[in-house]
Amino acid sequence: MNVKLKPEKYLRYLYLPNLFGTTRTKEILHVNPTIVPLREEAKEVVAFVYDYNSGVITEKKLDAIEEAFAFRDSNRISWINIDGLRKNDVETVCNYFGIHPLIMEDILSVDQRPKMDEVDDVLFCLLNMLYYNAEKKTVETEQISVLLGKDFIISFQEDASRDPFDPIRSKLRMPKSHIRQRTADYMLYAMLDLIVDNYFLVMESLGEQIELLEEEVVRKSNTRSLARINQLRKELIVLKRNIAPVRDLVAGIIRSESELLNDRTTKYFKDVYDHIIQAYDLSENYRDVMMSMQDLYVSNVNLRLNEVMKVMTIVTCLLAPATVIGGIFGMNFDIIPYAHHTWGFYFAVSIMFIVPLIMLYIFKKRGWF
Amino acid sequence: MNVKLKPEKYLRYLYLPNLFGTTRTKEILHVNPTIVPLREEAKEVVAFVYDYNSGVITEKKLDAIEEAFAFRDSNRISWINIDGLRKNDVETVCNYFGIHPLIMEDILSVDQRPKMDEVDDVLFCLLNMLYYNAEKKTVETEQISVLLGKDFIISFQEDASRDPFDPIRSKLRMPKSHIRQRTADYMLYAMLDLIVDNYFLVMESLGEQIELLEEEVVRKSNTRSLARINQLRKELIVLKRNIAPVRDLVAGIIRSESELLNDRTTKYFKDVYDHIIQAYDLSENYRDVMMSMQDLYVSNVNLRLNEVMKVMTIVTCLLAPATVIGGIFGMNFDIIPYAHHTWGFYFAVSIMFIVPLIMLYIFKKRGWF
Amino acid sequence: MNVKLKPEKYLRYLYLPNLFGTTRTKEILHVNPTIVPLREEAKEVVAFVYDYNSGVITEKKLDAIEEAFAFRDSNRISWINIDGLRKNDVETVCNYFGIHPLIMEDILSVDQRPKMDEVDDVLFCLLNMLYYNAEKKTVETEQISVLLGKDFIISFQEDASRDPFDPIRSKLRMPKSHIRQRTADYMLYAMLDLIVDNYFLVMESLGEQIELLEEEVVRKSNTRSLARINQLRKELIVLKRNIAPVRDLVAGIIRSESELLNDRTTKYFKDVYDHIIQAYDLSENYRDVMMSMQDLYVSNVNLRLNEVMKVMTIVTCLLAPATVIGGIFGMNFDIIPYAHHTWGFYFAVSIMFIVPLIMLYIFKKRGWF
Amino acid sequence: MNVKLKPEKYLRYLYLPNLFGTTRTKEILHVNPTIVPLREEAKEVVAFVYDYNSGVITEKKLDAIEEAFAFRDSNRISWINIDGLRKNDVETVCNYFGIHPLIMEDILSVDQRPKMDEVDDVLFCLLNMLYYNAEKKTVETEQISVLLGKDFIISFQEDASRDPFDPIRSKLRMPKSHIRQRTADYMLYAMLDLIVDNYFLVMESLGEQIELLEEEVVRKSNTRSLARINQLRKELIVLKRNIAPVRDLVAGIIRSESELLNDRTTKYFKDVYDHIIQAYDLSENYRDVMMSMQDLYVSNVNLRLNEVMKVMTIVTCLLAPATVIGGIFGMNFDIIPYAHHTWGFYFAVSIMFIVPLIMLYIFKKRGWF
Amino acid sequence: MNVKLKPEKYLRYLYLPNLFGTTRTKEILHVNPTIVPLREEAKEVVAFVYDYNSGVITEKKLDAIEEAFAFRDSNRISWINIDGLRKNDVETVCNYFGIHPLIMEDILSVDQRPKMDEVDDVLFCLLNMLYYNAEKKTVETEQISVLLGKDFIISFQEDASRDPFDPIRSKLRMPKSHIRQRTADYMLYAMLDLIVDNYFLVMESLGEQIELLEEEVVRKSNTRSLARINQLRKELIVLKRNIAPVRDLVAGIIRSESELLNDRTTKYFKDVYDHIIQAYDLSENYRDVMMSMQDLYVSNVNLRLNEVMKVMTIVTCLLAPATVIGGIFGMNFDIIPYAHHTWGFYFAVSIMFIVPLIMLYIFKKRGWF
Repeated sequence: MNVKLKPEKYLRYLYLPNLFGTTRTKEILHVNPTIVPLREEAKEVVAFVYDYNSGVITEKKLDAIEEAFAFRDSNRISWINIDGLRKNDVETVCNYFGIHPLIMEDILSVDQRPKMDEVDDVLFCLLNMLYYNAEKKTVETEQISVLLGKDFIISFQEDASRDPFDPIRSKLRMPKSHIRQRTADYMLYAMLDLIVDNYFLVMESLGEQIELLEEEVVRKSNTRSLARINQLRKELIVLKRNIAPVRDLVAGIIRSESELLNDRTTKYFKDVYDHIIQAYDLSENYRDVMMSMQDLYVSNVNLRLNEVMKVMTIVTCLLAPATVIGGIFGMNFDIIPYAHHTWGFYFAVSIMFIVPLIMLYIFKKRGWF
Repeated sequence: MNVKLKPEKYLRYLYLPNLFGTTRTKEILHVNPTIVPLREEAKEVVAFVYDYNSGVITEKKLDAIEEAFAFRDSNRISWINIDGLRKNDVETVCNYFGIHPLIMEDILSVDQRPKMDEVDDVLFCLLNMLYYNAEKKTVETEQISVLLGKDFIISFQEDASRDPFDPIRSKLRMPKSHIRQRTADYMLYAMLDLIVDNYFLVMESLGEQIELLEEEVVRKSNTRSLARINQLRKELIVLKRNIAPVRDLVAGIIRSESELLNDRTTKYFKDVYDHIIQAYDLSENYRDVMMSMQDLYVSNVNLRLNEVMKVMTIVTCLLAPATVIGGIFGMNFDIIPYAHHTWGFYFAVSIMFIVPLIMLYIFKKRGWF
Repeated sequence: MNVKLKPEKYLRYLYLPNLFGTTRTKEILHVNPTIVPLREEAKEVVAFVYDYNSGVITEKKLDAIEEAFAFRDSNRISWINIDGLRKNDVETVCNYFGIHPLIMEDILSVDQRPKMDEVDDVLFCLLNMLYYNAEKKTVETEQISVLLGKDFIISFQEDASRDPFDPIRSKLRMPKSHIRQRTADYMLYAMLDLIVDNYFLVMESLGEQIELLEEEVVRKSNTRSLARINQLRKELIVLKRNIAPVRDLVAGIIRSESELLNDRTTKYFKDVYDHIIQAYDLSENYRDVMMSMQDLYVSNVNLRLNEVMKVMTIVTCLLAPATVIGGIFGMNFDIIPYAHHTWGFYFAVSIMFIVPLIMLYIFKKRGWF
Repeated sequence: MNVKLKPEKYLRYLYLPNLFGTTRTKEILHVNPTIVPLREEAKEVVAFVYDYNSGVITEKKLDAIEEAFAFRDSNRISWINIDGLRKNDVETVCNYFGIHPLIMEDILSVDQRPKMDEVDDVLFCLLNMLYYNAEKKTVETEQISVLLGKDFIISFQEDASRDPFDPIRSKLRMPKSHIRQRTADYMLYAMLDLIVDNYFLVMESLGEQIELLEEEVVRKSNTRSLARINQLRKELIVLKRNIAPVRDLVAGIIRSESELLNDRTTKYFKDVYDHIIQAYDLSENYRDVMMSMQDLYVSNVNLRLNEVMKVMTIVTCLLAPATVIGGIFGMNFDIIPYAHHTWGFYFAVSIMFIVPLIMLYIFKKRGWF
Repeated sequence: MNVKLKPEKYLRYLYLPNLFGTTRTKEILHVNPTIVPLREEAKEVVAFVYDYNSGVITEKKLDAIEEAFAFRDSNRISWINIDGLRKNDVETVCNYFGIHPLIMEDILSVDQRPKMDEVDDVLFCLLNMLYYNAEKKTVETEQISVLLGKDFIISFQEDASRDPFDPIRSKLRMPKSHIRQRTADYMLYAMLDLIVDNYFLVMESLGEQIELLEEEVVRKSNTRSLARINQLRKELIVLKRNIAPVRDLVAGIIRSESELLNDRTTKYFKDVYDHIIQAYDLSENYRDVMMSMQDLYVSNVNLRLNEVMKVMTIVTCLLAPATVIGGIFGMNFDIIPYAHHTWGFYFAVSIMFIVPLIMLYIFKKRGWF
């Protein structure tokens, strides 16, 4: 049995708002009223210090955040990486390093717009790492805050269960790597580069979804496709919301005249800028493709309606002469021509079938079907 | 009985312009022709003075506006808060503090666009507090005017029955609070921050409405949903109209070189700016979601029409052969084949049912249904 | 009789291009090929001179334009107001005051875009006064040209039959009015303010039309509504065409470093600028509301088609079994079961009515109707 | 016979791609791959020299281009006008006057975008004269290149058969005309002014076409209207493509600090700029009107479908009861109530007609029709 | 047999996602996650050195890349052209010429956005050569990287099988050619000019496709046309993606104050800039034409549905009276008027045919058909 014949199946889908992801709408439209801070305390916090220069590196897992403070005067670059956000930890660190309370608030906020700020000799970046959740088919975000100071860099991540900075750690451990030869701003570059490169991975996954969806729309064009189009449009909103402000963020770093930023590193930030521009352009292309898919969906649905209407019109036209002739010879008049004729019945039935065939021929010639 | 079967019910809604909120249109499209001032005198006016510095605070409810003038030379910061607008009060205050007549006119105007101005050593901000009226499902506005001068800040609010500045009062009463340690421009920041944060609360409520509406559109797609989409689009116009110019307002404060604005406060205004940008971005996202909901609504309505058309086509096709055969054997010819045969009737009836089944099978295989 | 039942009535409207205002299109799309000047000579010209300073005012109706020239060296401000444009008058005045020929050409042109220019120590503004013609439901324009020079201001209006500057005259006659205390540029401000405030009155009228139309679209959605939507869209084009360039005009005055403009007056021009920006924003809102009305119209028309299609489908489904059963028992076979049975007829008729009821029940449960 | 009844007529139009102007699409989308120069040599070349100052003018038709070179050192302004482009002529002239090879290439190119350039003390303008071809209903272009140098101005036109510069010639012959009193840049202004003013004439013609089309859409809304809408949209593309870059061209001249441009002439170029801005605004208005016409067309076509569907539904509903009753009493049962009654037949027929009337009454009251 | 009559044929196309080019979507949406370099090593590498000045030219095919290094100190301009990218080659060259590692990475990347950069006295351009694949009807890209240094220019191309720089080689061999007289930056100009001119060839091919498609849409409007519209929209995305950033690239070169760029060459780059702007404008026009084609497609499909619906309505209306009359006289009442009359049958049949004719006449007069 062809599934498509059962309209109640369609409608059953319609009764499942989950198909259309209305709960996802809630998540996307959710905003962070800063007057009511909503951040839950992280269940797990993992903190590390990497204290390095071109010659030496010390790697230390922290049991208490305060252990990191010992490295401040090491004359080496200290990277403090805190994975999992607890209000108390953030405040301890920020107070020790003299971070402005507004920045502390930003680090602890949720659903913050990516931004970049320079306050009191500290350069602050807040942006989101994006992951593609293949199961739920959604774009997930993890807020990353980075504080770049004189000879130190502090990064805060929301979720201790996944760590996007592993490639940086591997490079740190290599004495010959660029990152070991350069100043702390190169570490900031390495982080931004990693995050922005990850956007392309997420877009790759969304691109595959779009491609699959297009095939589905072309093949079936049922309600499920419409639901998928709607879902993908929402994910593209999430994508664009996270990519667009990162352009300003990186442009801000390039324009910045902070002494924390080495001239030699500028060209690296320019490279990140090129990538984020490319990501933005691509997200625009995705939107265009989704638009033309929506048009395709509507056109396909209409085309099918047209097909059905044509079938109905053909059947109606075939039916009409038979009904009329049947009606004519079914009338109870005493005198009906050919009523008593041997071939009368066959003659009438023949007309019933010949007239529709002639009609069909005329209609076709006129190009109606 | 299923409500959906009764078209007259739908149509009854159509006859209720209230469902579509046409009276709301009037309110939204209303403009303020400044040549015909329309502001009604407030029925109730509540005025307070808070005269404070880091050490001392005096809080005084005013019976007459003139009582506030005594605090002008207190060498402390005086916040005069007037809740409820009466022409006479505004003029008394403005004349005493030497406010330009154009600003006085702006304070008394209605439906004014948010704006910021610096005239004669006074910085003037006019913007709207937004409230979400859960009952009427509309966004309500209350015009707030703030005058920042040397050691004084004067705020005018339209409606004495609700006061958005309560959190500021609580903080003022705490001797250790930031607001007590800082200059008058920090008070202006505190007010703007409060107002902008409130926008997020309103957007949160609208976001919930959008989510509920999307579920409704997905489930039912009736005229009521269309009315709700139209209503929400109007509220989004109100939202955007109030948020967009506040960007310029806050940007104007940041760019301003007024001596009233302390360098230390600039970073706070930048924080407000980040929030208002985020609010603006979100209002754009809302608009996108509403657009895709409108598309969804149209697609769903069309899909249902398609379903109905398919049912009709199936019924027509099933009916056709029976009609033709009934017509054939109902003709009054003397000689009708099988007419006298014992199983003739059953044979004819069988064909009546078998032919449609065969047609159904063919149609399904061709994927028409 | 319900009017809506008679399609020929609809169609009769369709045959009346006036309903759709095609002649209005001609007026809106009309352009001024400056090589073929089309301005007709005014039938009536009314000219006045107001020669004033804070102490004295002389008001004189001019029989000949040349009489105005006597006031040039009065050491007071002379406002020459010429209502009704004749080529000869304009040339006489412009030559006397040394106005550049290009400006003279602009004053005499028709359908000119609002513009502002500074040539040879004279500041020139050209913009349109808007009126709402309640009868024709159109936005009408009257071209106003203002020349601001050292101690004189000359205004040209197209139409002597209506005079928008009456409020200025009343204020001029009051010795204590602002306008009498200030320089000539304040008079220019007063004129611009009056003109821009009038835009709001026109928008108020259009807003009322939009509201009425929305109610009509919600209630009826017939061709007349479509015609009205189209008409209003055209008026909004007229509105926007006149408002948008006035922004540039006022911004140009604010930016201008002409010595004719007093620093004290700048804040007044800023106030006009705020108003024109608000007018522009509102015209954008109007456009949005018109867009969603167009969508509403289309949705409503489709919804009605759906209703009609559903009725038809219900009737077809009810008809089908009766037709089949009637056909079955109407066949002329000798042996028809129950044909000779007493209750056979009643049995068949019962089935005719029971089957549709069962179908109806099933369809409803599946949510098709 | 009403033409609209014959669908095959519609369809015949559909088979005529000319109606939809697909060949026109080819012309519009045609681009100039500069690596393959396509310009054909002009069949006819007409060249004139006008050598003038305020006192004297010499007018000479050239048999050979080289004759113009004698006027170079005349100490008067020399206008060399070459109507019809031949590679050889252009190279001769450009080499003699020391024009850069790139400009020579631009003059000879086809379908070039309007542009302005200053190279080696020569100011170069390239733009298109527009003509409205009333017969083909298309906008035609003629490429005009103007070279302004010290005391000479050279103009190249594509087509010798029509000459847009006649009005300039007439003025040149008048000793008192502005053009004779001024420097060579005033001649450039006169040319640009003439060309831009001509744009308004073309727009006037297009405006008339739009108006006629709107009337047609309102009246008929057939395929021919759709074809006309499509055609006009293409002409508007041509229009905008030629107008938009001319803005930059004129703005470039105004901004230019070339010594060739006299300060006194600047205000004349500003006047041309105002006109080209107005032309651009108007072309945007045209686009808006075309958009709303497309909407109108679609709405009208849908409305007609609705009308037809309603007629069909009414007929179906009227037919239904008659069919059922006819079926009931046509069954061949022995015992049929009232079968032998004198008034039985009339009773049944009455019901056949009364039931539809009741249905009609109910439907109307419910507002379905 | 008319193909259009067989809906299953349409639907078979629908089952062919290839028709809709979904695999092409994959290619277009593909992005280059720089963390996973995907470039395959070229199978074939062809490298040449052209060492030239106005007097002498040496042309040498390289067996090993290192052979090129000998020309560095030749005091002539060395053009090293490497056709086919291998990681090893690129690194060898870049290390020898002291190219920054980030640029090396860009040269080896795939799907890079066109960009321009100046690092360490080297000017770097990366853009795509476009080819139109007439067979697959797609726009293909070949990444070209150019490094301009002091007296050397190095170009890298992806694909050794096609070489777009042949015209440059021919000119190089001519001692009198511009390219031989000028500095190395003129060579860069020659390359950009060649690449941009090629864009016009690709657009020419796409323009032809659009024209053919428009004819098809006008004639047939079947699913195949929809598929072609969708395909072309995707190719236009590819086109725009490659053209838009080249504007910035060329503008960057013009703005650059690098000593590598000779003042005399600037006007050549400005010429390229004019061309790329024209290409961009044209790609916008293409998009507009595609939009109006999509509208045309939808309008045509709807128009056909309307035609079919009208045919059905006509047939239904013709059928109705015959059915009713047949039903009336088919009832088995004893007394049926005219049942025994000689002409009764003919009378009834006549009514069956006359009534529809009258209906038709009325409908036509009312303009329903």
